[in-house]
Amino acid sequence: MNTFGERLRITTFGESHGSGIGCVIDGMPSNIKIDMDFIQNEVDRRRGGLNLYSTQRKESDIVEILSGVFDGYTTGIPIGIFIKNNNAKSSDYENIKDLFRPSHADFTYFHKYNIRDYRGGGRSSARESVARVASGAFAKLLLNEFNITIKSGIYSIGGIECKDIDFNNTINSEIYSLDKNVENAQKQVIKKARQNHDSIGGVALISAFGVPIGLGEPLYYKLDSAIGAQMLGLNGVKAVEIGNGVESSKTFGSKNNDEICNNGFLSNNSGGMLGGISNGDIINIKVHFKPTPSIFQTQKTISTQNKETILNLKGRHDPCIAVRGSIVAESMLALILADMLLINASANIKNLKKIYK
Amino acid sequence: MNTFGERLRITTFGESHGSGIGCVIDGMPSNIKIDMDFIQNEVDRRRGGLNLYSTQRKESDIVEILSGVFDGYTTGIPIGIFIKNNNAKSSDYENIKDLFRPSHADFTYFHKYNIRDYRGGGRSSARESVARVASGAFAKLLLNEFNITIKSGIYSIGGIECKDIDFNNTINSEIYSLDKNVENAQKQVIKKARQNHDSIGGVALISAFGVPIGLGEPLYYKLDSAIGAQMLGLNGVKAVEIGNGVESSKTFGSKNNDEICNNGFLSNNSGGMLGGISNGDIINIKVHFKPTPSIFQTQKTISTQNKETILNLKGRHDPCIAVRGSIVAESMLALILADMLLINASANIKNLKKIYK
Amino acid sequence: MNTFGERLRITTFGESHGSGIGCVIDGMPSNIKIDMDFIQNEVDRRRGGLNLYSTQRKESDIVEILSGVFDGYTTGIPIGIFIKNNNAKSSDYENIKDLFRPSHADFTYFHKYNIRDYRGGGRSSARESVARVASGAFAKLLLNEFNITIKSGIYSIGGIECKDIDFNNTINSEIYSLDKNVENAQKQVIKKARQNHDSIGGVALISAFGVPIGLGEPLYYKLDSAIGAQMLGLNGVKAVEIGNGVESSKTFGSKNNDEICNNGFLSNNSGGMLGGISNGDIINIKVHFKPTPSIFQTQKTISTQNKETILNLKGRHDPCIAVRGSIVAESMLALILADMLLINASANIKNLKKIYK
Amino acid sequence: MNTFGERLRITTFGESHGSGIGCVIDGMPSNIKIDMDFIQNEVDRRRGGLNLYSTQRKESDIVEILSGVFDGYTTGIPIGIFIKNNNAKSSDYENIKDLFRPSHADFTYFHKYNIRDYRGGGRSSARESVARVASGAFAKLLLNEFNITIKSGIYSIGGIECKDIDFNNTINSEIYSLDKNVENAQKQVIKKARQNHDSIGGVALISAFGVPIGLGEPLYYKLDSAIGAQMLGLNGVKAVEIGNGVESSKTFGSKNNDEICNNGFLSNNSGGMLGGISNGDIINIKVHFKPTPSIFQTQKTISTQNKETILNLKGRHDPCIAVRGSIVAESMLALILADMLLINASANIKNLKKIYK
Repeated sequence: MNTFGERLRITTFGESHGSGIGCVIDGMPSNIKIDMDFIQNEVDRRRGGLNLYSTQRKESDIVEILSGVFDGYTTGIPIGIFIKNNNAKSSDYENIKDLFRPSHADFTYFHKYNIRDYRGGGRSSARESVARVASGAFAKLLLNEFNITIKSGIYSIGGIECKDIDFNNTINSEIYSLDKNVENAQKQVIKKARQNHDSIGGVALISAFGVPIGLGEPLYYKLDSAIGAQMLGLNGVKAVEIGNGVESSKTFGSKNNDEICNNGFLSNNSGGMLGGISNGDIINIKVHFKPTPSIFQTQKTISTQNKETILNLKGRHDPCIAVRGSIVAESMLALILADMLLINASANIKNLKKIYK
Repeated sequence: MNTFGERLRITTFGESHGSGIGCVIDGMPSNIKIDMDFIQNEVDRRRGGLNLYSTQRKESDIVEILSGVFDGYTTGIPIGIFIKNNNAKSSDYENIKDLFRPSHADFTYFHKYNIRDYRGGGRSSARESVARVASGAFAKLLLNEFNITIKSGIYSIGGIECKDIDFNNTINSEIYSLDKNVENAQKQVIKKARQNHDSIGGVALISAFGVPIGLGEPLYYKLDSAIGAQMLGLNGVKAVEIGNGVESSKTFGSKNNDEICNNGFLSNNSGGMLGGISNGDIINIKVHFKPTPSIFQTQKTISTQNKETILNLKGRHDPCIAVRGSIVAESMLALILADMLLINASANIKNLKKIYK
Repeated sequence: MNTFGERLRITTFGESHGSGIGCVIDGMPSNIKIDMDFIQNEVDRRRGGLNLYSTQRKESDIVEILSGVFDGYTTGIPIGIFIKNNNAKSSDYENIKDLFRPSHADFTYFHKYNIRDYRGGGRSSARESVARVASGAFAKLLLNEFNITIKSGIYSIGGIECKDIDFNNTINSEIYSLDKNVENAQKQVIKKARQNHDSIGGVALISAFGVPIGLGEPLYYKLDSAIGAQMLGLNGVKAVEIGNGVESSKTFGSKNNDEICNNGFLSNNSGGMLGGISNGDIINIKVHFKPTPSIFQTQKTISTQNKETILNLKGRHDPCIAVRGSIVAESMLALILADMLLINASANIKNLKKIYK
Repeated sequence: MNTFGERLRITTFGESHGSGIGCVIDGMPSNIKIDMDFIQNEVDRRRGGLNLYSTQRKESDIVEILSGVFDGYTTGIPIGIFIKNNNAKSSDYENIKDLFRPSHADFTYFHKYNIRDYRGGGRSSARESVARVASGAFAKLLLNEFNITIKSGIYSIGGIECKDIDFNNTINSEIYSLDKNVENAQKQVIKKARQNHDSIGGVALISAFGVPIGLGEPLYYKLDSAIGAQMLGLNGVKAVEIGNGVESSKTFGSKNNDEICNNGFLSNNSGGMLGGISNGDIINIKVHFKPTPSIFQTQKTISTQNKETILNLKGRHDPCIAVRGSIVAESMLALILADMLLINASANIKNLKKIYK
């Protein structure tokens, strides 16, 4: 269950404080040129430790390719990736090795597996997401061949929402904010949370441009369902919206419907998909992240022996996981669209006839 | 891609105006007593045609079991189900056989498959969901053996939200409303929409009680991701929230964390799952449905020949798909939990030792 | 686990003495013309009851299409199929409802599922294979579009082997024999077995012509492994050979290697595949069927209560399952090749560029 | 497609002359004690370079665990494994970088993927099987908990068959022969092949003891089909037999049926499975390996430019791949049985009730 995708399949392994995080990308078509600088750059976008708005754990996150690329091109066989952990501090966790951290996975992992890897959350740590970003970078190289691009940014922090969405603003924003005018207020909320030994929630917006009509497999691998699975599968995500999202449950059909003209749709409340299939319009997704559960205030909890006690956490954590989470969500959308692109190749006999003579 | 689930696998087939809707339930453990009255009753809860708040298409929806049950018990082999269509009126669709209905799947299906089954939306119609409810009823019979129950109701219509949640109120409510005091206002919004030849969005709340700790398979078949996939895969769903959902992206960790005591959690912002695994608390999910795209107002559209034109719809449609959609969402959660229950059986060596000797 | 295939997925349901046998074909590309006469004819080739060399159970085996075909063409959505049982005689089985038939699945199903559907073997009956042949016929319609053809015939009965292989001979042979000169001797063995209330084993040869280079997905969905899975998965099959098969384990590399020239291979010991991928040569597979376990001689067995007893069978059975089994094996190869054809569409970027502009 | 298994899933990556071979084992239950000496010893059994009957490539084959084991126990999360290549000699392959080696996968990989990794066969090399043996060792640790053991040995070389099967003889036999009296003759055939710059085929026998009744999932993941898939998926395997195998196609039902008494079956022609499910008897499988396609005699071939030419191979190769192949086949059976053991945990409600109170 550590694999996802149908034709482009990603399998990840590794723990936060183990030797590293690995990934196998299976099903990547052959003869795609691999730009290692691009891949490393993508992984660096997710990296923490660089400013006050993210964790102080500083990982070099060097992407090592173990297989599947020959002379700079994919060969069609599985691509093995490994990224070493070299800044783990397990000592931070020794005083809580028998305690459950509130709103963390410690409690459920322990009861499911009857064993506890207390070091930094083990497998449940967001550290694993580095593999998602690395493999997402490969997916982007595939999508680039078809002029499909994906962008992300921070839409809101602690309820402070961007108004004028500008993906260019994220490039130089320490918090990847989508609106220069709102960015500072958003930063202040994060700072305040950090000062209070607290954390804060946020929302990322992910958009995909140039997606051809036809991606998505009804009825149980709809584009919507793949997005729902992968976005709600991210650490700390508690809600996902497509297009008009939550707002559409409050409005009338006459307002929400996207009428159609020669050039496409007159509005995009659908968020780029209809009936589970991309409709050629921009794909828009909002991903809601809860505040980081690791806070440095005293909390009530119990031990593995079921004794009530008080928890005081150490460690290095993002005050707002939405910031770096936006890059991970962007990567997941790349992986989903790449998978759907491959699957759709056999949707109709016309496509197949182009390939087989 | 018309199959979902890992150990309990559901495969559906059939179109809105074809001979009927079918389903194969694979992986159901043997020796579960099958109560046909219960199953028919579940399907009847979803049935339309009974009041002014739903479609006027009146299907008898008789569930026929084709295989997999012997002498009233499951045998461990696939359960085949078929539900005949007998109230389809394809003539309603003949005048629009070359036109795309705004915010419907017509447009994307046509471009993906290069063919059009114009009759009532074909495969993309919500008619298919009768198979989900029927198979969900089987899943509930399995869950019942372990005292797991699932309930659903309407949380809001057109933004009018329930305050005092009471699942008992749904039993006699024509719109499955969760709050007696709000129900009437919610009904009025639907009536108004219908009178205006319009439709309205709504939100369903789905809760599961008695779920044991440990269900959900990290990292890519988390309980959260399965819920995200299946809920966003439902027709018309544009957003999904787990637990505190959207609200959690606006708040602080110190407010959102669920502290722990001897008896469990002191709050349930997590919505019953942590790290993708059930934590023993009540599972709470909100599912946001857009307004029905079929409205009876004039809309701009194009033809399959890409000519701009005006659309005037006929047919029989729910003014608010959230109402009957809540039953479908409830069924999907039953199927997910049943699947997770089966998978979890092999999570640790302790479980396996109980079985093999 | 009643589904197979990756892109073309077949899910079957139904028992020997239930209401019928059904099948869902998922992933069939749209816009393939469906020739119902061809499909029915394929199913008729498998049908028993027509001569002395097969079972006397006479099923009409009418293929009913429940979904997925519109105006004579596939629509890209799942194709539902149902074939009614109307000649089951469950009374034949009442005297053995508590006894295990030697070398049948009764024993293992009972212990696995703790329940017994004694009527005609239930799900484990070869009656299910009618769904395989019907769906195989759909696969053939797809393969026909690319001039891929599949043939089968009886290669040996009770060790009496064909010498001059001629697929045309099977057309008018009651036992689908591949060699006119050997056919009569093969028939005599079957007759003798029947007269002795016994049964006899046999071997089917399956060949595929016109298969393009490149079908098969290394390393765990090789063409060879898919063939191994589906052929050894057929009732009564105890061995499978590809190309030179068993003989290749007795010989030298210098004899077994297929040298290559401009026009292809100088020999075909490989049986049309190398490294799990089709090499453009004819695919040759031999499938070894054991003798029918249902014989009409007295046999030692035990009851479900573990009491030793004597078994005397009634019922109608093929004296040699290889004969009709050859048609089923042929159908399975069609399904495998169709699946591989679809998967291979995304193998390299060149293929994808043909599709997406 | 580099993954297999349903509940215990193995994903491998890596090439013969890349940095190494890796594997992810997903679904291993938690709390299994990991004996690294045992695992390394299993991998060593497969290792070449130790005597005249195997390749002279000497790899140290040290198994490195990257994740999934904590304090000596499995944690329920994916186990990452990596085994470095450190004795690859790519220079041996430079003179043939544009030539196809007869009966090798070069030809089909090149045409499928339009790219060539000429170094040692790349992904198609049997070098990958080290990952199968390493992961098979983990599977054995799981099976050991339930007293299931698997053994293998060489049954025949070049047609010279063992008579008195003795698995103990394989321990000190350089060719893992099953019969002390035949071993020397089998060695002579291999020596002769090597002297003639040739290679020779062989047959491995794999047996499993102590397998409980009930493993195997009908109808499309039968124990037989999983065995067929994984055995025919091994490099060089051209035929697989279960139980009486090929012989059963030549005989009568009265001879082939396994009658039943109080203590089990009176014979074991079925090879330990009925209807796709284990029957409690010993599982017996014969795996037929073709002679190594790499021979050092002059062969006709063509170049990637389709020019006819003559090939003279260099490199280090096993004269008989069946010898080391037997260990790989044994490992595959371990993986299959472990997977089936996990799946079967949810077969019936009785099993589930043992787990969930």
